[in-house]
Amino acid sequence: MKVRKRLVLVALWIVSLALPAFAADPLPSWNDTAQKKAIVTFVERVTKESSLDFVPPSGRIATFDQDGTLWAEQPMYFQFFFALDRVKALAPKHPEWKDKEPFASLLKDNVKGALAGGERAMLEIVMATHAGMTTEEFAQTVKDWIATARHPKTGRPYTEMVYQPMLELLAYLRANGFKTFIVSGGGIEFMRPWTEKVYGIPPEQVIGSSIKTKFELRDGKPVLVRLPEIDFIDDKAGKPVAINQHIGRRPIAAFGNSDGDLQMLQWATAGSGARFALLVHHTDAEREWTYDRTSSIGRLDKALDEAQAKGWTVVDMKNDWKIIFPFEKR
Amino acid sequence: MKVRKRLVLVALWIVSLALPAFAADPLPSWNDTAQKKAIVTFVERVTKESSLDFVPPSGRIATFDQDGTLWAEQPMYFQFFFALDRVKALAPKHPEWKDKEPFASLLKDNVKGALAGGERAMLEIVMATHAGMTTEEFAQTVKDWIATARHPKTGRPYTEMVYQPMLELLAYLRANGFKTFIVSGGGIEFMRPWTEKVYGIPPEQVIGSSIKTKFELRDGKPVLVRLPEIDFIDDKAGKPVAINQHIGRRPIAAFGNSDGDLQMLQWATAGSGARFALLVHHTDAEREWTYDRTSSIGRLDKALDEAQAKGWTVVDMKNDWKIIFPFEKR
Repeated sequence: MKVRKRLVLVALWIVSLALPAFAADPLPSWNDTAQKKAIVTFVERVTKESSLDFVPPSGRIATFDQDGTLWAEQPMYFQFFFALDRVKALAPKHPEWKDKEPFASLLKDNVKGALAGGERAMLEIVMATHAGMTTEEFAQTVKDWIATARHPKTGRPYTEMVYQPMLELLAYLRANGFKTFIVSGGGIEFMRPWTEKVYGIPPEQVIGSSIKTKFELRDGKPVLVRLPEIDFIDDKAGKPVAINQHIGRRPIAAFGNSDGDLQMLQWATAGSGARFALLVHHTDAEREWTYDRTSSIGRLDKALDEAQAKGWTVVDMKNDWKIIFPFEKR
Repeated sequence: MKVRKRLVLVALWIVSLALPAFAADPLPSWNDTAQKKAIVTFVERVTKESSLDFVPPSGRIATFDQDGTLWAEQPMYFQFFFALDRVKALAPKHPEWKDKEPFASLLKDNVKGALAGGERAMLEIVMATHAGMTTEEFAQTVKDWIATARHPKTGRPYTEMVYQPMLELLAYLRANGFKTFIVSGGGIEFMRPWTEKVYGIPPEQVIGSSIKTKFELRDGKPVLVRLPEIDFIDDKAGKPVAINQHIGRRPIAAFGNSDGDLQMLQWATAGSGARFALLVHHTDAEREWTYDRTSSIGRLDKALDEAQAKGWTVVDMKNDWKIIFPFEKR
């Protein structure tokens, strides 16, 4: 026993000698600007045991918005394309939709007309396409869709419309003992079937908007049925509420791109000790899209002002990111 | 680089040689009965890569009820003692309680009289003691209470009224790559301030009943205020719903002790592949309490029938547990 214990110690020492050899640039898709430096400096501050700002691994919680932060969100939130495709797929079972808004317009590819009904129309589309099945049936539908659907502009699968610099950032944080969470306004069950594969974030670290579910025994087999009733909207002031409910502690780092993330960034940065907040600013019309203060999707206005006032890190995509999408590397 | 990589491999190989030397009995407080064997057999089935039932670590989700499963629950749920103590502590600020039920009875230590008002009385007690403050204030109150309060029968801190065999089981599962979660009818924010220290279960792996919270800026500082409104009751059919909401995948093992856990065990065992369900049966009047089918707290009736019908593991505390509470060891 004693000899073996010593062997373990020797082995661990050899590992520690060898590890620095692997320390290449963990953020190769980031240009060497102040933004990259701010990230690395923060991570070093909270992970070096000798640092005054050292945070033990259990406290290294980082939360990420999804739409516009981890993957693109133009010309519409991708989940909305899913809903549109579902309306079309389900239409044969709903002959009444031909004369009923918002479905009638959608089936004629008139999205603008469909959304003229405002929030109520949106809710009807969500409920018709996201409720009425079991959780497992819905997860399978999402998996099938995400594997085959293509983005209207790039023709790429949506899971290739993720940001390479953010993938590197997620991996870098995890390599430094962080637990990474998604905190998105999007549907929690729309994300979970694929986030582990795409982002390395397991279902239990995905937080999002939800509808209610109900436990039932069907022929003796337990199922959870998705009900056409909103449970929680994980946006704006809802984000800190959901973070508290799911995680139960305050993140020390938070990442977003729009006013919907403002309260999450406020919440994360108001804790004691070293804190980090970052906003992705969409400034690259050529490689992606340019939008901020007046966009109806991903509006970045108040949060940008607050970032400037408080010294949060703002990523200028055009300037700070060497490449944006993984497929640019090929 | 190449040489160093080889050094790492050699080091890992030495570690792997040395590890079996540490393999003592991981469940020393369990008698060598069929119940202990069932646990070990299940864990080996899902963790051996050569096993047909192998489950990769990411899928090794285990959920535990708390009251009556991880710690005792007699003569009343411990959180109720917390509420009683809070009523007394808050009474000076509420002179009207002297003439108002259920508080008037409580302040005269007449618990039975207070609870004569049924569910409504219970709800009033919970809201008066659990709502109206920020989440951080509430967490501090819980921390202060759990550090000083004593169980009326044993005179021990409540955190010593945990079951030693279950602490070993939690550690054993985690050592085998499981992620352990609490899924309790108790309040989520009542548990989180101390579960990491007591059970090794971090806040983000604690699921429970909750009241609503609201994000606010107070003098520019963000807070979450606890509102006097039920958000979710994590009991019975609510447990699978909450498991799906928080974890997003089905546990492969679930542990409970009462009818409130029946649906969680049904949900866990209805998935494909190897599954494990265990009920703690309180059968030791001398070292703990004896109760099951007719108890008002922790009733074990339907779940016991279903366990017998389905071959779930039922722990007979008197027979299967060498010691029950950690302090028996001393």
